[in-house]
Amino acid sequence: MSTLQDSLDLITRGAEEVLKLEELEARLKAGKTLRVKAGFDPTAPDLHIGHTVLINKMRQFQMLGHQVIFLIGDFTGMIGDPTGRNITRKPLTREDVERNAITYREQVFKILDPALTEVRFNSEWFDTMGASGLIKIAGKYTVARMLERDDFNKRFKGEQPIAVHEFLYPLVQGYDSVALKADVELGGTDQKFNLLVGRALQSDYGQAPQIVLTTPLLEGTDGVNKMSKSLGNYIGINEPASEIFGKTMSISDDLLWRYIELLSFNIGTAELKTLRADHAAGQLNPRDLKMRMAHELAERFAGKSAADAAVEAWHKRVQEGAMPADIETVAVAIPEGGIKIAQLLKQCGLTPSTGEAMRKIAENGVRIDGEVVSDKDRVFAQPAEFVLQLGKRHFRRIKLG
Amino acid sequence: MSTLQDSLDLITRGAEEVLKLEELEARLKAGKTLRVKAGFDPTAPDLHIGHTVLINKMRQFQMLGHQVIFLIGDFTGMIGDPTGRNITRKPLTREDVERNAITYREQVFKILDPALTEVRFNSEWFDTMGASGLIKIAGKYTVARMLERDDFNKRFKGEQPIAVHEFLYPLVQGYDSVALKADVELGGTDQKFNLLVGRALQSDYGQAPQIVLTTPLLEGTDGVNKMSKSLGNYIGINEPASEIFGKTMSISDDLLWRYIELLSFNIGTAELKTLRADHAAGQLNPRDLKMRMAHELAERFAGKSAADAAVEAWHKRVQEGAMPADIETVAVAIPEGGIKIAQLLKQCGLTPSTGEAMRKIAENGVRIDGEVVSDKDRVFAQPAEFVLQLGKRHFRRIKLG
Repeated sequence: MSTLQDSLDLITRGAEEVLKLEELEARLKAGKTLRVKAGFDPTAPDLHIGHTVLINKMRQFQMLGHQVIFLIGDFTGMIGDPTGRNITRKPLTREDVERNAITYREQVFKILDPALTEVRFNSEWFDTMGASGLIKIAGKYTVARMLERDDFNKRFKGEQPIAVHEFLYPLVQGYDSVALKADVELGGTDQKFNLLVGRALQSDYGQAPQIVLTTPLLEGTDGVNKMSKSLGNYIGINEPASEIFGKTMSISDDLLWRYIELLSFNIGTAELKTLRADHAAGQLNPRDLKMRMAHELAERFAGKSAADAAVEAWHKRVQEGAMPADIETVAVAIPEGGIKIAQLLKQCGLTPSTGEAMRKIAENGVRIDGEVVSDKDRVFAQPAEFVLQLGKRHFRRIKLG
Repeated sequence: MSTLQDSLDLITRGAEEVLKLEELEARLKAGKTLRVKAGFDPTAPDLHIGHTVLINKMRQFQMLGHQVIFLIGDFTGMIGDPTGRNITRKPLTREDVERNAITYREQVFKILDPALTEVRFNSEWFDTMGASGLIKIAGKYTVARMLERDDFNKRFKGEQPIAVHEFLYPLVQGYDSVALKADVELGGTDQKFNLLVGRALQSDYGQAPQIVLTTPLLEGTDGVNKMSKSLGNYIGINEPASEIFGKTMSISDDLLWRYIELLSFNIGTAELKTLRADHAAGQLNPRDLKMRMAHELAERFAGKSAADAAVEAWHKRVQEGAMPADIETVAVAIPEGGIKIAQLLKQCGLTPSTGEAMRKIAENGVRIDGEVVSDKDRVFAQPAEFVLQLGKRHFRRIKLG
């Protein structure tokens, strides 16, 4: 049985903001099983661990015995973009939505407990509401308050068009909370405005306003930019264990602490505190901790045996590589447009020329963190830290920035 | 068979604005039977002749063989005011709407030809459209353009709240034109923005945009303010013939020309021109013309025999009153809060005191334009011109201003 403080510690761990903490405390004190809502786009999901920060928070509520609602916003998804400006936002069919929902389930149930997860679709209430119902909801909020939303405000001031229907979407999302009688709504920091609309609408409909909890955006493996597929700095949750493990091992020590806070279930809040203290006292090898985190992620998304195998393969590769303990560190500034692998080899002094570098790559003689580089055109455009290896004996620790 | 120019003359007679005249001309030239839409609130109608300016314009289209659509905006009427701010705008029930529609028909068919009038309700398409349909429509228009509407602009700048649903109403009205495939939409000048939204939406839906024709607001019998029930300067279309006739006879000569232009069917555009010329040449007694207009209105709204009787009664009253040809004119400035009838009698010299004036009123010895004044507290607050009579022999032509 966890105490109120334990519950609060877990719920607020890594959270960006909780509005209002005292309301959350009061509902927990009252022993209420909270209805915790999080909304998801019904577009084809291909999640990376950045997305799981929010899903982990849902899981933490489940660990405390609360009811989690995985809401799929299919109602607006099936409308598409009525302005016709965004051609990539085609209306989804009912079949698309159902297919995507299955893909979602497969992915999120790697984290969530299906028995404690209510999967809902907002078309359930919006399809039968009618145009008049939507007008009634739209009567609950003013144009001026809507224009307070950051992106609307910027576009309005910058004379960029905002279509009238865009004012309806936060209201649709807000009304979802009314329909679901949510106690808590979770969302990324960029969702804060919409989550607050939910609070306002619930008050209007005579409900106690939901508590809003925002989670931060996770930095990618480069430690700088938000994790994203297009930046190539992501760890996908459907990747093989070796990839998940290897990519996690490549992050910086600084970023590790962030990943632990936002992604680890095994390292509890109390242990995390101890670890930080040990580290500050120089009594902890970050690499061991990184290994633990990398294993936890690989196990979560690929299963225990695949994770164990990934660790073993990693050790073997490192031994084979016979990586020495002291490797020369070279800081390399990333030029405009990024730096090619061949140039990098030359610049850090491993090869005398880029031509020689190209030949070595072709001979499978170049490795990064123990893995053979096969793409001779590979470009590094983001800050990163890794060990570059030529043959069996030549190493440089590269600090790209 | 009327020529194109005759048609254009009739359609544009008294109109405030036609957008765009060349489009109207082109459709008339093509020999198209135009679908002419005008929208009405579904609230309990009690029309005065100010409202008939628009209905007359509908009738003129019918006279040219076009199809008129009398659209009752019941969809929004049945929503009421979702903000709850306007407690007088309660949602109407289906029964309210139907009862009001009957009252409307009774009144407007005094002017319109029922055979050429399509009575429609916009709930026909909005009730089945769904919230998603409304969102699609809302995607067709931007927030910035919506804020160009005069009243929105003023309220936004003045930091007065505008509820989001208010942005949907012009779109609802505009979509009505799409659903009805309107060629022309008629409305008061205050409706111009909404009528233009209809043009924009029709273009978006692949229709030729409707021609927009606005009609002016009619001044009341005082010749100064817009005709309105609350100002007491109105001629109701359900009033008895004697009232319609008498009130029309009380208007100023200047206002008469305006009434003829906007309200007469008997005096055609060509004759109106001749009459104006005669008047300018001093060859026309405005009183005869006023009588003709007053009779036309009384006949339209109360029937021929009642109108004839009203004229006869009027003549009799004037004869009984033995109103002389030359009556002294007295200009009276209206004080703050208006002037009481007793004060007026004293001020123009008909009675030596207000006490005496009160006694004469109590004896039925005071008349205005031949009609006995029974209300001793009657107050005049608006500019007007009339003959004030004491007993059988004493007259003053009062110019209140």
